[in-house]
Amino acid sequence: MNAPLPVSPSRHHAQTLRALLERPGRPVIIGVAGDSGAGKTTYTNGLRRMLGDDIVGMIPMDGYHKEDRATRRRSGRSPLDPDANHLSLLREHLEALRRGEVVHIPGYDHVSGTLTSPKPFAPRPILVLEGLHALYPEFAPLLDYRVFVDPAREIKLRWKIARDTQYRGHAVQPLADEIRRREAEFRRWIEFQKTDANVVIKINKSKLRLLASDEYWDTPPDGCFHVELIFQPTHTPLPPLRLSFSLARMLGEDPLPFALAVVPRSYWGRQANSIHLDGLMPPRVVSVLQRQIERFTGIEVGEARTAGALKHERMPAIAFTQLLVTWPILEHIAHILQTRN
Amino acid sequence: MNAPLPVSPSRHHAQTLRALLERPGRPVIIGVAGDSGAGKTTYTNGLRRMLGDDIVGMIPMDGYHKEDRATRRRSGRSPLDPDANHLSLLREHLEALRRGEVVHIPGYDHVSGTLTSPKPFAPRPILVLEGLHALYPEFAPLLDYRVFVDPAREIKLRWKIARDTQYRGHAVQPLADEIRRREAEFRRWIEFQKTDANVVIKINKSKLRLLASDEYWDTPPDGCFHVELIFQPTHTPLPPLRLSFSLARMLGEDPLPFALAVVPRSYWGRQANSIHLDGLMPPRVVSVLQRQIERFTGIEVGEARTAGALKHERMPAIAFTQLLVTWPILEHIAHILQTRN
Repeated sequence: MNAPLPVSPSRHHAQTLRALLERPGRPVIIGVAGDSGAGKTTYTNGLRRMLGDDIVGMIPMDGYHKEDRATRRRSGRSPLDPDANHLSLLREHLEALRRGEVVHIPGYDHVSGTLTSPKPFAPRPILVLEGLHALYPEFAPLLDYRVFVDPAREIKLRWKIARDTQYRGHAVQPLADEIRRREAEFRRWIEFQKTDANVVIKINKSKLRLLASDEYWDTPPDGCFHVELIFQPTHTPLPPLRLSFSLARMLGEDPLPFALAVVPRSYWGRQANSIHLDGLMPPRVVSVLQRQIERFTGIEVGEARTAGALKHERMPAIAFTQLLVTWPILEHIAHILQTRN
Repeated sequence: MNAPLPVSPSRHHAQTLRALLERPGRPVIIGVAGDSGAGKTTYTNGLRRMLGDDIVGMIPMDGYHKEDRATRRRSGRSPLDPDANHLSLLREHLEALRRGEVVHIPGYDHVSGTLTSPKPFAPRPILVLEGLHALYPEFAPLLDYRVFVDPAREIKLRWKIARDTQYRGHAVQPLADEIRRREAEFRRWIEFQKTDANVVIKINKSKLRLLASDEYWDTPPDGCFHVELIFQPTHTPLPPLRLSFSLARMLGEDPLPFALAVVPRSYWGRQANSIHLDGLMPPRVVSVLQRQIERFTGIEVGEARTAGALKHERMPAIAFTQLLVTWPILEHIAHILQTRN
C-alpha cells in the first residue's frame, strides 16, 4: 500500500509559485461570493493555510455594511441589499491595494452586531475578497478569479443554524424564520453573481444512498455531502495530476463509499465542466493532490497545517473539494504572474 | 500525457496465471447466467480473448433444450423452464469434464431453431458454463465462480430486438410481445440465481444526464450505460491496481463524461461492494488495467485481440466493465490454483 506516490513533474512551471510571487507586481485578487453561512470562509481558509498569511490577505466585506444590527432592526433594511453596503468605498480600497497602498478596512463584530473601527491593511501578493457581494459588477474589472459557493437551501439552513447558535449567540427559531425570509433577497441580490464565476461550488445532501437502494449501510459516515464543482474550462495547460483509486480496495472487505463524476454541461448559457464528488476520499488520493500542490507552490504545508485533514484515515469529499478547488486557482494565479511579467 | 504507466508489481503472485494453468489439475469452472439477450456472451468473450481458446473453453447451454423451436410452438413450453432442459445430463457432462474426460455436447442452431448433433468437447484449464440456468442449484458444487448478467428490462428488450432481428431473422413485434410475456418466466425461473452470484452485473440506461440537469450536451455519446457491478467482497489479497483519472482533463476543454462510484451495500441479505460505472472511460485507465492483467496472466493480449477496445480514443464504461470483471475472476482462479496444489 505504500508504493511511491505518482506525482508527475510539473514541466509547465519551471518556477514555483513562491518564486513568481516574490517578483514585484500588483496583487492578484480573488473574489469569493455566496450567501451568509454558505461556507465561503471554509474554502478561502484552504488557500490561506496552503500559502500562509504572509502571502494571502483576507478582505472581509462585513465591515462595509452601512448599518449595524440595531440600526437595521429599526430601518428594516437587509445587509443583502447592495445599497446597504459601502461598495464604492470597497472598490476604492481594492484599487488602492492594487497600486500597493495600505488601506483602512472597517470591521464588523458578529457577536455584538456592531461596526468596529477601521484597521490598517497592507497589500499582499494574493488578496481574497470574501463576502455577499464579492462578485458584484463594480468589482469585476479588479478580480482575477471568481468563486461562488452555493449550498442547497436546506444545507445552508442547517449550517447557519449550527454556526450562529453556537458561536454568535442567536436562538434557533427566529434565525430559521429570518433565513426563510431572506431567501427571496438572496435570489434578488446575491445569487445572480454565480452566472459568471470561474468556479461554482454547489453543495447538496449526499446522494450515495440513492446508489444503494433501500438496503444501505446502517450509519452513513459523518460529513458526507454531494459537491458539484462547475468550472469554466481551463485553456492553459495544467500539469498531469491524476486522481487515483484503488481497485483492490473497491473489491475488498472495507470499501470506502465515494462517487466521482465528470460531465460537460452548459451553465447559464456557457460551456462548463462539472466535477461531482460524494462520500469519503481515500487518504492516498488526498495526499497525492496535497503533494502536487506543495511541489507546485514551492511551499511545504507540513504536519501542523494539515493536521485536520491528513491525519484522518478518510476525508469527506467536501473537505477534499477545498483542496481540489485550490489547485486550479493556484494554476490560474501562476499563469497570470507568468504572462504579465 | 505519455508518462510511464503506474503498473504496480503483483507481489502476491510469484507465478503468472499461465504458469499455474500449465500445472495438471481439474478445470476451473465459471458459471455465467442471465436472461436470453442479457449480454452473457459479451462478458465471457472478454475472458476468452484475454486467455485464448486453448485455455478457455465455452460450454453453451442452448443445446441442452429438450425441444426445438417447432416442438415448443406446439407444446407451449418455455426454454426458461428448467424442466424443459436436460440439466442432469449437463451436470454429468460437467462432472466428466472435471475428471478430464471428453464429452459430447449437443448444439442448437439459433437461426433455424433446431437442435444439432452433439460434438466432442475436450476439457481445458478454464471452462465457462454459459446459459439461462448456469447457476442452478444442481451445478452449485461444481462451480468455482458465479456471474449473473442482469440488464434492466428496457435494455434487455432493446438488445434482444437488435440482435434477433439482425442475426436471427425474427420480426420485431412478435419478439417484443414474446419478451414481455417471458418476463414472468424470467422472474420465476432465472432471476433468483443472482442472489448467490460472486458478481452481479446490472446494466441500466446512462444516468449522466441526471447530473447535468436539463442543459446537457446535445448528442450524448453512443453506447453509454450505467453499469453496477455487485461483488461479494474479496478476502484474498489483490495486487494494488488503481483506476486513475486525469484532473487536468476534467478541467480542460474536452472532458470525458464518466462516473465512478463505490458503495458498500447489502444484496439479498449479505454484504456486497457495488461499483458503478457510467459514460466513457479515458483510454489510459483502460490501458493500465489491460497491462496489469497481461502482467498477471503472463499472456500478452496484443494488438489484434484488443483492436476493438484500445484503438478507440474513448471506451464506453460498459466495455470497460468487461475488462474490469475479468480481473477479479482471474485473481480468483489464481487463488484456487495456488491453494489446491
